[in-house]
Amino acid sequence: MAVKEISQAVIGRLPRYFRFLGELKDAGVERISSQELSQIMNVTASQIRQDFNNFGGFGQQGYGYNVEYLYTEIGKILGMDKTHNLIIIGAGNLGQALANYMNFERRGFIFTGMFDNNPELYGKKIRGMHVRPMEEMADFVRRNNVDIAVLTIPKTSAVKVAAQLTEVGIRGIWNFAHVDLEMPADVKVENVHLSDSLMRLSYMIGRSDENE
Amino acid sequence: MAVKEISQAVIGRLPRYFRFLGELKDAGVERISSQELSQIMNVTASQIRQDFNNFGGFGQQGYGYNVEYLYTEIGKILGMDKTHNLIIIGAGNLGQALANYMNFERRGFIFTGMFDNNPELYGKKIRGMHVRPMEEMADFVRRNNVDIAVLTIPKTSAVKVAAQLTEVGIRGIWNFAHVDLEMPADVKVENVHLSDSLMRLSYMIGRSDENE
Repeated sequence: MAVKEISQAVIGRLPRYFRFLGELKDAGVERISSQELSQIMNVTASQIRQDFNNFGGFGQQGYGYNVEYLYTEIGKILGMDKTHNLIIIGAGNLGQALANYMNFERRGFIFTGMFDNNPELYGKKIRGMHVRPMEEMADFVRRNNVDIAVLTIPKTSAVKVAAQLTEVGIRGIWNFAHVDLEMPADVKVENVHLSDSLMRLSYMIGRSDENE
Repeated sequence: MAVKEISQAVIGRLPRYFRFLGELKDAGVERISSQELSQIMNVTASQIRQDFNNFGGFGQQGYGYNVEYLYTEIGKILGMDKTHNLIIIGAGNLGQALANYMNFERRGFIFTGMFDNNPELYGKKIRGMHVRPMEEMADFVRRNNVDIAVLTIPKTSAVKVAAQLTEVGIRGIWNFAHVDLEMPADVKVENVHLSDSLMRLSYMIGRSDENE
């Protein structure tokens, strides 16, 4: 399917469509109208139709969309029909938590290696992976077809490590370090800035106080 | 300061302004123009001015903004001049990772308790907190002025726990469970859907492949 320039906002909503459609599919629902989907997802039906029109509309006809088809097509757009090999850099609590999260694997994200610069962690086994020294990272990425690196390291080292990853040809960085990484256009970065998220929650609570 | 209806997009950007201004302040920078800030942050100067105008503009005059003043004011808008008491529900890897993350405390987010429904974890000490049984949660929230609950539990139990939290008067939920919570208007929810984030990265990598 030829996909033209899609806005970040639309892309941001695709995983949520995928999640709800997966739940409908698992519940045995075969067809759904944009009105029904709208009610379940708490967005307007016109928003849903607009979003889907970016990808050719997914053939709504007669009574609504075919759930399984829609789920599969959105999954393909998100690359869920492919697998990705990941490494985790930073074997602390967060790195270990992500390594142990089974659901990522179900989606085709395969954790293949874990790296740290703390010698005390070398050899420690986390979900079947031994923690390796950073010096082995470049070689490991090349040998194991790794395309995504997860950064769960402090921001002070994240910039340097990201540069090393670019050199060895990484395709995407899932960045938990609290810093914005400036990468070449062919290295994609998705940030999870946890502190920023917590601050947004604090803002919403504060606004709600003012309105009382 | 009277703050009127601010769009989600602007709110989403505030923590990033706060972070960059904090770094400028720590580096000893006293004044900065919107043009300079624009270059550092990789957004347009007019976007910055528009965003700031939502809050009265922060008095740019002569040569740019006063960094410390801007940092303090944006911090106040985000509620960084107040403290919040948090509990973590779900003492697994992710809950433990968040409990151990020191930076949240520096921003006034104080972890006061940790809960789980797995008896094997009861009494386990994580960053000075003993893991408590879920039955003690309601009483703990009331006694300790807890206003934010962090949900690091599976989606199957998240909806039920969120309802319990609403009953005991929680103000905000930082939700890591992979489900959208429908809460009353006075309970704010900030979602961190890690799978959705990873799917966005997968999408960006896939799009980049097509353009090669």
